[in-house]
Amino acid sequence: MRQRLSVETYIRGVLAGDRATLSRAITIVESSLPDDRALAAEMLRGLLPHTGKSVRIGITGVPGVGKSTFIEAFGNYLTSLGKRVAVLAVDPSSQQSGGSILGDKTRMEQLARNPNAYIRPSATNLSLGGVARHTREAALLCEAAGYDIVLVETVGVGQSETLVKGMTDFFLLLMLAGAGDELQGIKKGIMEMVDAVAVNKADGSNGNAAQNAVAEYRQALHYLPESPSGVPIQVVACSAAEGTGMETIWQIIDAYCSKTTESGFFAANRQAQQGDWLRDQIRVSLEERFYTNTVVRQQMATVAERVKSGLQLPVEAAAELIELFLQSPAKPAEISGKS
Amino acid sequence: MRQRLSVETYIRGVLAGDRATLSRAITIVESSLPDDRALAAEMLRGLLPHTGKSVRIGITGVPGVGKSTFIEAFGNYLTSLGKRVAVLAVDPSSQQSGGSILGDKTRMEQLARNPNAYIRPSATNLSLGGVARHTREAALLCEAAGYDIVLVETVGVGQSETLVKGMTDFFLLLMLAGAGDELQGIKKGIMEMVDAVAVNKADGSNGNAAQNAVAEYRQALHYLPESPSGVPIQVVACSAAEGTGMETIWQIIDAYCSKTTESGFFAANRQAQQGDWLRDQIRVSLEERFYTNTVVRQQMATVAERVKSGLQLPVEAAAELIELFLQSPAKPAEISGKS
Repeated sequence: MRQRLSVETYIRGVLAGDRATLSRAITIVESSLPDDRALAAEMLRGLLPHTGKSVRIGITGVPGVGKSTFIEAFGNYLTSLGKRVAVLAVDPSSQQSGGSILGDKTRMEQLARNPNAYIRPSATNLSLGGVARHTREAALLCEAAGYDIVLVETVGVGQSETLVKGMTDFFLLLMLAGAGDELQGIKKGIMEMVDAVAVNKADGSNGNAAQNAVAEYRQALHYLPESPSGVPIQVVACSAAEGTGMETIWQIIDAYCSKTTESGFFAANRQAQQGDWLRDQIRVSLEERFYTNTVVRQQMATVAERVKSGLQLPVEAAAELIELFLQSPAKPAEISGKS
Repeated sequence: MRQRLSVETYIRGVLAGDRATLSRAITIVESSLPDDRALAAEMLRGLLPHTGKSVRIGITGVPGVGKSTFIEAFGNYLTSLGKRVAVLAVDPSSQQSGGSILGDKTRMEQLARNPNAYIRPSATNLSLGGVARHTREAALLCEAAGYDIVLVETVGVGQSETLVKGMTDFFLLLMLAGAGDELQGIKKGIMEMVDAVAVNKADGSNGNAAQNAVAEYRQALHYLPESPSGVPIQVVACSAAEGTGMETIWQIIDAYCSKTTESGFFAANRQAQQGDWLRDQIRVSLEERFYTNTVVRQQMATVAERVKSGLQLPVEAAAELIELFLQSPAKPAEISGKS
């Protein structure tokens, strides 16, 4: 087992922007060992005053749209402006299909070698809630380490877009120009979540198709309600392979941040996200306390058997177990930072 | 306010297969009023021994694939075999977009007039968990009312496929033959959930394209892991508009049920679903008890403010509130069927 450092060493190393320490700190945050959870809580408490200063950008799009090429091009563009860029990934797909993103070492080779960029491979084997929590905490660590921009990539499976939307300031959808109905492939609901759409691979013989797609999406946006941010959704073409469109996209994001900071939406959105995170955490911690309760553990098998055999409705069985849980002598949690 | 009947009247009416009473019973089950929740719990308890005998079939597909036309054609085919068919819908989309399915009265006109069919419009304004629970309970009521087959339609937004997969015995994906890459539009992960794929609109000039799509999907299935049921995933063409393919699809489902009943998977899958339902219900009820707790309510605003301002991490704030919850004198729930 890898040796742990002291809390002070982690905090000092992260604040100094040391990438090796940052990586080890994120590993602690992702760990489910009770000792690590306590260490993570203490570390995060110490770093909290140094967080919150980055722009958090979520990036989504179907497989094949060129997300990693885009992040490489966009990340390199941002560092050319003197910005420090961290890349995280939300990938709950590993639960069922075993797929993972950012795991492939050959991806984003150039950005990975860039001294002002930090790429964190996605944590695997976590529940959806675990993925969300650990990515949020990893983003805080990256901010404490001085990264100005945190890019959060989502593989676009299940609820991952909603999760990433819930932890970022700006949400960018990458699309492809294709033959036929441009809108067919869009997951219903996704357009209502995004702040900008970039039609990628607008290069070579694909240039015209991309421009047509841009026009078509812009048209489609007329039928959507106004964005909660109050800033109209922008649609642009880009080519991650050729590096075109990166400046425009950054200008859109920068202008979005200025406008929403001025309107107060930027801060209000972050506060709402913190509130959602608290709610998520309460659910996770409540369940943990319930399922580790001695009396519940003793009764669970019998009750579950009755429900599985169709002899009792889940709603009644749940009420019965929760009564046992609440009547059993409450003990203080062993570790407050646990879950 | 509509007058409520006595529990006995509901139970007798549902068991007699009376559609008006069934509708009123489902309305009670969907209600969030405490009195209705208690009534629903008692009613469901009485009906529980009469449930579980239908085949539950989930149906999904992107908007425009022809789900309602398909359900109309398939439902009419099934009633022609002497079966009684109930149609329910899972539609969490109303949360954000206000959309709803099965709400349009002009849909499934023919099936709606069929005396052996029962169509229930989707409940709206419910949480995702609420949608799942109420649809499950509505399915139990339909079974008690003697329906042999329950079709559960999902609008395919967010987690709705997962929910429907989790409450049905067989999951059917409707697809369209289109130009270009047939697989591009498939939501990643959906193919691993389905038991059969039907390529709809295989009629007129679209017939060849549909056959090609069938071949292409069959090919694609080779790259997926074997289905947990042990029964290979079937791919067929159909035309809901012309009513072709309905017999084949029913034969596939019927054969699936025979094979999985023999192998024990059918029963094991249902038991697992009941277990999942219990787990969901525990989460919902735990949260309800927590958020209605007097001490929690007193402290919540202050703690949430600290978290929103970035002064405290959600994990610590959650632990603190849960401690207060567990140390405060536990009172028995007012109504055990409540949530």
